[in-house]
Order: sequence, then C-alpha cells, then structure tokens
Amino acid sequence: MKYADSGVNIDAATRALARSKKAVRSTWDHRVKNEMGAFGGLFQAAEGEPLMVASVDGVGTKVMIARMAARYNTVGQDLVNHCVDDILVQGAEPLFFLDYFATSKLEEEMLPEIIDGFSTACRENGCALLGGETAEMPGVYGPGEFDLAGTIVGRVLPENVIDGSGIAAGDKVWGLPSTGLHTNGFSLARAVLFDKVGYSVSDTPAELNGVSVGDALLKVHKSYLGDVRNLWQKFGREAIHGLVHITGGGFYDNIPRVVPDGLCVNVDTNSFQALDIFQLIQAKGDVSDVEMHRVFNMGIGMVVIADESLDLSQVEGVGAVLLGDVAAGDMPVQLLF
Amino acid sequence: MKYADSGVNIDAATRALARSKKAVRSTWDHRVKNEMGAFGGLFQAAEGEPLMVASVDGVGTKVMIARMAARYNTVGQDLVNHCVDDILVQGAEPLFFLDYFATSKLEEEMLPEIIDGFSTACRENGCALLGGETAEMPGVYGPGEFDLAGTIVGRVLPENVIDGSGIAAGDKVWGLPSTGLHTNGFSLARAVLFDKVGYSVSDTPAELNGVSVGDALLKVHKSYLGDVRNLWQKFGREAIHGLVHITGGGFYDNIPRVVPDGLCVNVDTNSFQALDIFQLIQAKGDVSDVEMHRVFNMGIGMVVIADESLDLSQVEGVGAVLLGDVAAGDMPVQLLF
Repeated sequence: MKYADSGVNIDAATRALARSKKAVRSTWDHRVKNEMGAFGGLFQAAEGEPLMVASVDGVGTKVMIARMAARYNTVGQDLVNHCVDDILVQGAEPLFFLDYFATSKLEEEMLPEIIDGFSTACRENGCALLGGETAEMPGVYGPGEFDLAGTIVGRVLPENVIDGSGIAAGDKVWGLPSTGLHTNGFSLARAVLFDKVGYSVSDTPAELNGVSVGDALLKVHKSYLGDVRNLWQKFGREAIHGLVHITGGGFYDNIPRVVPDGLCVNVDTNSFQALDIFQLIQAKGDVSDVEMHRVFNMGIGMVVIADESLDLSQVEGVGAVLLGDVAAGDMPVQLLF
Repeated sequence: MKYADSGVNIDAATRALARSKKAVRSTWDHRVKNEMGAFGGLFQAAEGEPLMVASVDGVGTKVMIARMAARYNTVGQDLVNHCVDDILVQGAEPLFFLDYFATSKLEEEMLPEIIDGFSTACRENGCALLGGETAEMPGVYGPGEFDLAGTIVGRVLPENVIDGSGIAAGDKVWGLPSTGLHTNGFSLARAVLFDKVGYSVSDTPAELNGVSVGDALLKVHKSYLGDVRNLWQKFGREAIHGLVHITGGGFYDNIPRVVPDGLCVNVDTNSFQALDIFQLIQAKGDVSDVEMHRVFNMGIGMVVIADESLDLSQVEGVGAVLLGDVAAGDMPVQLLF
C-alpha cells in the first residue's frame, strides 16, 4: 500500500501550496528571517533583538485513534511536543503555546481531558499555555469527531539560529529514538491496521510484544528539548550543525529542509531497528521500504548532524544512534536499505 | 429561538472550561501578565521588554456559508481581522499570524483561495503570514467540509497595555460599526435563515435591500486597527480607557471582560440601528432582544470606552456612535432596549 491509497495525497497538497507561495511572500518584509519551507517561521521585530520562532500544527488523524480508544489526555501532549520539536530544530526554546479544539458537539467530560494533555506537556516543556479556543461545529465535524491545532512561539538569539548552513562533508549523522508514530502517518496506519487487517484498538498482535494496537499508536510524541539541551551543554551549540524533526514526509522530505546544496546526508537504515509498530504496519500492508521511510519516522524522531569529532552516544539518557554521515552529492538525502 | 436550540450550548462550554482553569494556570509563571479570560494572552519574556500578546481563534460555522456560496477567499480575511481585533483591545499591534486549514479531502483549487484570504488581510494589517499547516482528514471532517484556525502574535509596550483599569464612572461608551455578523452567531443564523425559513445563499429577501443572504453573511470581519490607531493619534493612548471586541457572547459576555468591579457600562441599544441582516434574523427567528445581544454584535463590532471629554464622532472615517456611559453599579453591563 501507499500513502495516497489511504486517501491522503501529499503531492496534491504540495502542488496547491506551491501556488500559494507568492501570496504568502507578499506578506513578508525584512523582519521575516526564514526561507519558505522552514520548520518554524523566524521573526525579528527589531534589529539586535532575539528572534521569535513560531510554528503551527495538528496531530492529523491521531485524533481518530484517541476517539476509538476513548483516551483524550494524550493528544494534547502530542501536539505541544510536536510544536516544541519543530522550533527546537532552529535552535529555539519555547515560550508559550495556544490551542484550538473543535468538535461536532461539546462533551463536557472530553474538553478537560484534552486541556489536561496540553497543560501536562506545557509544564514539562516550561511553556505557558497562553490561550485557547473551543468551537462546537455540528455539521463540519462528523458525529463525535474532533480536531486540534496548536501554535507555539519560542525564541532564539540571532547567533544561535540553526539553519543547516554549518553542515559540512564529514559530519556525522545521529538519530534520537522516537516513541512510535509521533503525529504522522496515521491515515496509512489506520488503512492497514483497521481497514485491511481489521484490528481493534484493544487487540494485542504478537508482533507488538504485549502492547495493544491502541497503546502503540497513541504513544506520546517525544519532546527532544531536554535531550538537545544536554547535547548543547556537553558539546557547545556550535558543534551541532543541523537538527531535523522527522515529521510528515519522513526521512525523504524532512532531511532536505536543512541540507545545503551539494551535500548529501547518508542514512543506513540498518543502523537502527524499526519499532514493532512500524514492522507490523509494513508487513500487514505490504508497504515498500521507501514508502515506509517517506511516511513514518520508523523509530528515529530527531536527526542530529554534528561535527565528526563528537560521539553523541556517550551522552547518557539521550540514546543517540549513529545513522551515517554527510558527503558531497547531488541528492540531499540517500537511504541505504 | 435561542442559541442553544441551534445546537450550540455556550453554558456547557463555559462549565467545561471552568474545570480546566486550574490545569491551564499550572503552566503559568511570572511571565504571564494577563488574567484568565482576557481577549489575548500577555507574555513578557524578560523584565522591561515589550509584552507579546497572542490570541487564537476560528471563524465558527461561517466556513459552512463559504462552502454554500463556494467563496473561499474571504474566510481567511475574517480570521486574520478577528485575531487583530482580539489583541488590539489590549493595546497591541500585530507582528505575525499562523494559519491552520483542515479538510476532508484537499481540493487543489480551494487551498490557494483560502491562503489568498489570509495573505490579503495580513498585508492590510502589516502582519506577516509566518506559517501555516494544511491537513487532509477524511473521516474527521464531513465530505467537502473544512475548518480554519489562526493564531496571531503582536506586541505592546508595558506602559501601553489596556486592561480596563483606567475605566471610571462618567466615561463615555462608543461603538464602532461592524460589517455584519463578523465571525459569531452563525449557528443561530443558519438555523433561522436556512433550516427554519429555507433561504438559499442566493436569495435576496426584501429586508436585505438588494443584498443576497450569502453576501450579507459573508461580509468580511472588520479590522479596527486603522480606526483605533486614528483614535490613539488624535487623543493620545491614555484617553482610551477600554476597548471591547464584540465577539461570541455579544454585548453581555464581552463588555464585562474589561469593566472593573463596581462599575456598569450602560448601552442604549436605540442609539444605533441594527444591521439589516440582524433585523431579518430576529424577525424570522422570533429571537428576543436579549438573546440577539447575547449572540450577535448587532452592528457594533468594537466598543470604545473613553474619557468623557472626548467626542469620537468627530474623527473622520471611524463612524463612532455614542452608545452610553459608565456609572457606578453592581452589574458590569446593562442594556436599554
């Protein structure tokens, strides 16, 4: 199976967004410091000030798994942590977060659980839950369905912005472990596990080693803020040349977002073992290796590109795995299977 | 009819949110400068710095009208202007905006129109469209349905924050004209105009004086940034004691958000004429005066509470109407019909 078969067409979205680039750019002036397609937007209100870094996201159809499992206090954590990671890759640390929650019919019990999830993750990341909006929209949302969106604002000193320009041939490429799907690829996962195989969220297939399908799918998106702070503290900020959050588009679409022209990030996929849930999806859905790595993080949620002299695996608690290296090349990323 | 009859229960949302206040507060530290329930959140990253002011919102079921009329380039403007107004009432001017757009199945033609709306309003407000997220979620959204959420970040110098504490007995209360429903009350409007009466968006009932139902409902939410800047410039910032964005909850729920204890804002509803669209909804839906003013802005999108010596009606282009005054009282707001 391919992602497009599950009803989501990444290419159509990409084409439509390309048409809108000019309109978006027409709103930018000298205060916007990022290029189109960055993980977060960089905004410097006045010269010499720290840059504000902002990003908006949803959790995709992970909301449908939450509903199937009637567990509403984790998706808010997913969203906050996802947003934290999106601005972290540019060197920013979070200041505040705002949430949007909309549903067909407000259930008084559900909303506090959702907000509890946002609050938990905001506390963990030292980030204020500064605002929120709740909307009841029968007709727009299917019966009982809901959606979440969140926006984070952080900041970074101008000299600490990471934009990948420091990446050089010879750099080592490391991976930090993910907890599961994080917030991407749920349409394909659902198509395989529920529509094709017919699992329910409480099923515990042998491949998941005692974990239920629902638990595996709802594992909370990891915030890498603590781990990356550890790396900065141990090695200095300048030794970390690039950070890549492996989100929608997997390894293939995310790594190129930070790699300078003429360089190639080589990733040996044999250097780590795909998490059980990914092995299950691949086997049951007969999904190709390339498609899997284009849709999922496979077990690596954050890629760290660092000076070749560093051994990130020595930093306790981070769990860094050596994935490969950076070399001269025409393709920004190459995966070895 | 009442708002609750249209499927939206404001009280249930209020109760559920009250239960979540403690969780939200647990994420706040000394950097959060607003009280719970403010229009926007105030965040001061470090002492002496300008405050960041942030707000998140949607356009409610106005998205359904856009779909009925197949007009997608205005709802983005609604959302940006709504957000601009939400932070303007605390004295802030916009810096940047981020959008979230989610739909059941991405139509390549619709997305550029949506983003065109965001871009247009961002340009008009001098605000960068700094980021966005697009999600395709078949199953969560009904076929062809979509939703929008947006987050704005602006800022204000500490000495320019408007929190209503300057409001005093004797102040005059002014209203600035709205263009229509702005982004609130669409569930009730739809219940009356479409479900009860059976209008289509192209119908032109005599009460609307040649304007179609769709055109009246889709009138773009007004940004009051230019008008309020004019008032600040003419009278000085300190002469404007309070600003109230009349959004969901109408006059009754919004005015109390800025009025200090022991004072009452008196509004004579005879001082302005309700817009045609509101007269039509009230007549066809047999909605009470109180309910109308609890749901809709009725033609006044921004309330300005100013020093009694000022005559705002003299400022050209702003269209300020004298609504009433501030007096001692137990109720924060009282409407005279």
